[in-house]
Amino acid sequence: MQPHPTAATTTATTATATEAPVLRDDRDGVVTLRLNRPLQFNALSEAMLDALQRALDDIARDATVRCVVLGAEGKAFCAGHDLREMRGTPELAYYQALFARCSVVMQAIQALPVPVIARVHGVATAAGCQLVGSCDLAIASDAARFAVSGINVGLFCSTPAVALSRNVLAKRAFDMLVTGRFIDAATAADWGLVNEAVPAEQLDDAVARKVADIVSKSPTAIRYGKAMFYRQRQMPLADAYAYAGDVMARNMMEEDAGEGIDAFLEKRPARWRP
Amino acid sequence: MQPHPTAATTTATTATATEAPVLRDDRDGVVTLRLNRPLQFNALSEAMLDALQRALDDIARDATVRCVVLGAEGKAFCAGHDLREMRGTPELAYYQALFARCSVVMQAIQALPVPVIARVHGVATAAGCQLVGSCDLAIASDAARFAVSGINVGLFCSTPAVALSRNVLAKRAFDMLVTGRFIDAATAADWGLVNEAVPAEQLDDAVARKVADIVSKSPTAIRYGKAMFYRQRQMPLADAYAYAGDVMARNMMEEDAGEGIDAFLEKRPARWRP
Amino acid sequence: MQPHPTAATTTATTATATEAPVLRDDRDGVVTLRLNRPLQFNALSEAMLDALQRALDDIARDATVRCVVLGAEGKAFCAGHDLREMRGTPELAYYQALFARCSVVMQAIQALPVPVIARVHGVATAAGCQLVGSCDLAIASDAARFAVSGINVGLFCSTPAVALSRNVLAKRAFDMLVTGRFIDAATAADWGLVNEAVPAEQLDDAVARKVADIVSKSPTAIRYGKAMFYRQRQMPLADAYAYAGDVMARNMMEEDAGEGIDAFLEKRPARWRP
Repeated sequence: MQPHPTAATTTATTATATEAPVLRDDRDGVVTLRLNRPLQFNALSEAMLDALQRALDDIARDATVRCVVLGAEGKAFCAGHDLREMRGTPELAYYQALFARCSVVMQAIQALPVPVIARVHGVATAAGCQLVGSCDLAIASDAARFAVSGINVGLFCSTPAVALSRNVLAKRAFDMLVTGRFIDAATAADWGLVNEAVPAEQLDDAVARKVADIVSKSPTAIRYGKAMFYRQRQMPLADAYAYAGDVMARNMMEEDAGEGIDAFLEKRPARWRP
Repeated sequence: MQPHPTAATTTATTATATEAPVLRDDRDGVVTLRLNRPLQFNALSEAMLDALQRALDDIARDATVRCVVLGAEGKAFCAGHDLREMRGTPELAYYQALFARCSVVMQAIQALPVPVIARVHGVATAAGCQLVGSCDLAIASDAARFAVSGINVGLFCSTPAVALSRNVLAKRAFDMLVTGRFIDAATAADWGLVNEAVPAEQLDDAVARKVADIVSKSPTAIRYGKAMFYRQRQMPLADAYAYAGDVMARNMMEEDAGEGIDAFLEKRPARWRP
Repeated sequence: MQPHPTAATTTATTATATEAPVLRDDRDGVVTLRLNRPLQFNALSEAMLDALQRALDDIARDATVRCVVLGAEGKAFCAGHDLREMRGTPELAYYQALFARCSVVMQAIQALPVPVIARVHGVATAAGCQLVGSCDLAIASDAARFAVSGINVGLFCSTPAVALSRNVLAKRAFDMLVTGRFIDAATAADWGLVNEAVPAEQLDDAVARKVADIVSKSPTAIRYGKAMFYRQRQMPLADAYAYAGDVMARNMMEEDAGEGIDAFLEKRPARWRP
């Protein structure tokens, strides 16, 4: 994804880097995670879910991280669950645990204190499409396509529907779920599933611009805002206002808000606390 | 609607077929319901609501049904409640019962275990627009137009607002409700009220393609998914995931999911249980 | 805004008209409020919030009002909170009270029994963008631009997020909040934040058309509908239907509904009670 990561550190979340299911690059507070089972279209095997969970847990504990980019190696972005592995243990308790674990990963993305941008360069299907929906922001190459295609194998994409239906309008979500149809990147942008669809060769630039935009802001303010955003959405209006007003008042008491407003009034750049 | 229903059975939901308020065609597991008061623009009289409710109840009990198409005879799709009939009994209890009955019909569409596609060939106003909103999917001819126009007769479309505001964004819904303005089919598609707007002469083909797509899927999977879709939408995120994960695990234990996944892995067509 | 208000009465909500933070014009039941701190880009100072609250309270008590237009003087529509004033009292309790007061103003717009149209001729940022989101309808000049830009000064727009995320889809709202980016009027219309974007010179005509449309309707019906619209949105589907059905039945018992339906059936114009 980054052709010349000269200043970056690439690590893997497991011992054997070349086979690690998730790769991590760090550069100036920006973590790039890459799903790394390209030959399996980055299917979310148990090992992949575990690696992703660990990577998210590590980021949650790391106060130096400012932004996360979630991309993938190979031709596809992510093809969803690993169907072969799933068929290997045909037990209700196993499936309940598997979908619960996957749901925890998806919610961990929203629970991170920093924004997560999906960098979607190829096909995102089923739980792969859910991953896109679960990120705060998403930028897609015009080579990307999106589907919740479990219905084609007799398995309605129920957990992906949770994320999808919180991103796009009802009839569009239902149509995708019941037909398994693909939508292209432009349609995904039009429907609100992704923020932008750009030509493939401009994908890295578009992601880099969004990252640069985000890391130029106060980390404290973003931390207040991201948690508030998802929580207030689920409240009745009056409760949402009571909660958001309190959050904003506390944000105002932070040094960064004072500095930011003073800098604005003095027409100088602000300097945020790290 | 079906020019040559050679293989289909047409029945009416009341004794006198020619005057039946709702016509029913059955063909290969696809039920086509047609509102049949063309001279009254298919207004939802008490008789029409009863016939619709009965037809939906029959479908709910019939395990051979795979998909429902809801269309209408004559020039209009549906003009909403029967105003003349409503004026005949100016009593609060009567109106409360009438709107409650209509609301039960609308919710019965969502409660059906199979997808319901609105085939909108003409004007859909007030509770007629609500019908479109209440279907899982909607395909409109470019001759269709949509309004929640009760406001023009001093009656704000309150129950239609319930369906409309769960399909389109807030300011657009409010605008339609407070002005009674018509939107054309292309706008309805752009706003998410319908899935597609097609030239009038392509309407039957577009509906037939969607039906064919749906009946090619596992009925079991669709049954799990449709109920889950509407229920999870009303839950907070964590509850929605807990619920959807359990549903998906149970779906995985069904024969169809095993067959579907095996067929996919073996690169052969799946064969669903009926 | 109204170049020749010959038939209108212009008053201010405070004693000194030329310095009143909010100006009010009355004309045939239509109240036009104009934010009037043009040199401060109509920032929502405490005085402005108080004046706006008083104006809304007056309108709520005035049964002759049929529609409200919320516009502004000067180049900008509204730049949000008054940052200089806010920095003057760096106390948590002060900020909590300030955001609570602002939230009460925003909710008072929705609580009014008559529709409120935002007339957005210029920049609307932070709580200014929230004002637009809080109005029932919004019409923007193509010179208008929208942002929730608090993040640029280290203060995430938490209370504006409440209104924004109830108008536009999740990823778009989050993108605006976390980057502070401006969107133009056409994008705001495409995303549903405003109903229309028109050339600047057509703004007054577009607003006048919408006002004329609204005041031609039954005030009683609009009163029932506006309150119902926002309340039912927050309910589960079955509860929403039970509530909306009861509201609609009561609306049917009003003289205006009888008159409106009779007029429709008799093909004559309806005459609403004032």
